Amino acid sequence: MVTDNGKSGAFQVPAREIPVPDHLSTQAKAFLSLPRMERVAYPDLDDAAGWKAYIAEADARLTDVFLSRLPPIEHTCTEWREGEALAFDIVPASLPTDDPRVYLNIHGGGLIMGAGEVCKAFGLLTAIKLGTRVVAVDYRMPPDHPYPAGLDDCLAFYRALLRDHAPEDIIVGGGSAGANLAAAMVLRARDEGLPLPAAVVLISPEADLTESGDSFRTNDGVDAMGSLMPANLLYAAGHDLAHPYLSPLFGDFTKGFAPSILTTGTRDLFLSNTVRLHRKLRMAGVAADLHVTEAAAHMVFGGGSPEEAEIDREIRSFCDARWAGRYPA
Amino acid sequence: MVTDNGKSGAFQVPAREIPVPDHLSTQAKAFLSLPRMERVAYPDLDDAAGWKAYIAEADARLTDVFLSRLPPIEHTCTEWREGEALAFDIVPASLPTDDPRVYLNIHGGGLIMGAGEVCKAFGLLTAIKLGTRVVAVDYRMPPDHPYPAGLDDCLAFYRALLRDHAPEDIIVGGGSAGANLAAAMVLRARDEGLPLPAAVVLISPEADLTESGDSFRTNDGVDAMGSLMPANLLYAAGHDLAHPYLSPLFGDFTKGFAPSILTTGTRDLFLSNTVRLHRKLRMAGVAADLHVTEAAAHMVFGGGSPEEAEIDREIRSFCDARWAGRYPA
Repeated sequence: MVTDNGKSGAFQVPAREIPVPDHLSTQAKAFLSLPRMERVAYPDLDDAAGWKAYIAEADARLTDVFLSRLPPIEHTCTEWREGEALAFDIVPASLPTDDPRVYLNIHGGGLIMGAGEVCKAFGLLTAIKLGTRVVAVDYRMPPDHPYPAGLDDCLAFYRALLRDHAPEDIIVGGGSAGANLAAAMVLRARDEGLPLPAAVVLISPEADLTESGDSFRTNDGVDAMGSLMPANLLYAAGHDLAHPYLSPLFGDFTKGFAPSILTTGTRDLFLSNTVRLHRKLRMAGVAADLHVTEAAAHMVFGGGSPEEAEIDREIRSFCDARWAGRYPA
Repeated sequence: MVTDNGKSGAFQVPAREIPVPDHLSTQAKAFLSLPRMERVAYPDLDDAAGWKAYIAEADARLTDVFLSRLPPIEHTCTEWREGEALAFDIVPASLPTDDPRVYLNIHGGGLIMGAGEVCKAFGLLTAIKLGTRVVAVDYRMPPDHPYPAGLDDCLAFYRALLRDHAPEDIIVGGGSAGANLAAAMVLRARDEGLPLPAAVVLISPEADLTESGDSFRTNDGVDAMGSLMPANLLYAAGHDLAHPYLSPLFGDFTKGFAPSILTTGTRDLFLSNTVRLHRKLRMAGVAADLHVTEAAAHMVFGGGSPEEAEIDREIRSFCDARWAGRYPA
């Protein structure tokens, strides 16, 4: 007897109970044991006020989950404007003043959230983790500023950094939507004749706004986060979701890209995004490392777990290797 | 409103339809569209005749799916005995006679299947893919020969190869149960004071016979293959499933291990096995690369797809790099 999966090849997976794996760290288990928030319905695409309220509430949640434990590290944080684009230039006090390395950090948040204080806090967290200066782009977002405003802003700061840095000093990175923009920006910079950065860090990249990857189905409900399509459409504002500047997964990496590190988790809705982008990079001959965290969904374990510290060490060690020779004597 | 996930942190995933992703190759889509066989019930643990019948039928299916398309390549295949252990020494006719490289191939099949002709055919396939001599261990298996017979046999041939090869000439690899034995054998060889091989290839490793990984739950029903616990218990024959020689995931890799490449797929029941072992190796300071194929379950796409050819190229390129300098001039 066979399961009838019809002409389409689709098959049925029955309802299941997914326990918290015993072998995870105490912190990871505590995070996975938190009650799951019911998904909030997205506003209608043309309801700008509704989106603004949705975004404000979501930003408050992001801050609660990820940034409440930000360690008090002495640093300077300077506002930097390039035309309409804004960034925070974050320098830990412990850094030598002649350290030329800089990390262009592009924050996540589904291409609609993560502005202002969240952007700044993510930037500082990244500066601490990597032990380097971070320029955190507070790029413009929908509903007021859809594509390509955010990408323009990221590129503006990459251009600005190239004014007084060798490309080998610069690493570009981001998580989730920030990894979308990081990859898209490097593709566009390359297309516009700019030099490639030393490396690209892509943390659970939202590489495909069309959401064609298998894990958008297989991990739906396993990851508490669901489809972001309404936000994708708001961001694209009528542009083709499959254009490489909107969905860098569909870019042509054979024309050049910087060495990359990609991370995801087995429960991540963006697992397919990540492994597909890794494969595209590898098949284009780009050096690319992949790291997958056991039982981690898109939000991983909320920060503070040994599992996340491991991946942070991988990213730092990858960046340090790419920056080798760029340290002050 | 929150989903009540109870004190355990377990949550419910509703029943779902999983379609065949449009973006896969024609070959992969055709494989995923095949009707799914209903899982065959395992015999009782003490029913040796039942196990033998089960194994014979399963081997016939393995041959059908994987080995029907074996290309006709000129080669020699010599039976080799080391005490009670048997292997096939497979040399493609195209190889220079002074090529010192050898790949010790340990076949898969849930620690109970894959003997004889299947072992030989997998060995030849591996020799073709890697362009090298393969020694394919036809290790003894349950129900007649439980642990440690199979592991003893693999180690016997590693020892035998070390008689007339530098360890740098030897790469050890296998898929599924074969990757269990490959990793366990290298751990045991190390513990017994033998030198490490040049590299280890671990294709969807059955690294944890206790099946504690998250993907044993999250990919149950997504992967057509289900739990192999009855076979694990038959193999262990009362030994501790969590011993590193039975479940190499629990080994101490800080005491030394060879550079490794690990592969899996997003639908693989052994996804967690693979990423957990990758993380353990990395955290122990062992060079280890991870490659994950989009939408691939444990059997990948039955061979012959471009997705599998990509991974084969990764493995060959990894092996070639580890064997660098070991080619005849």
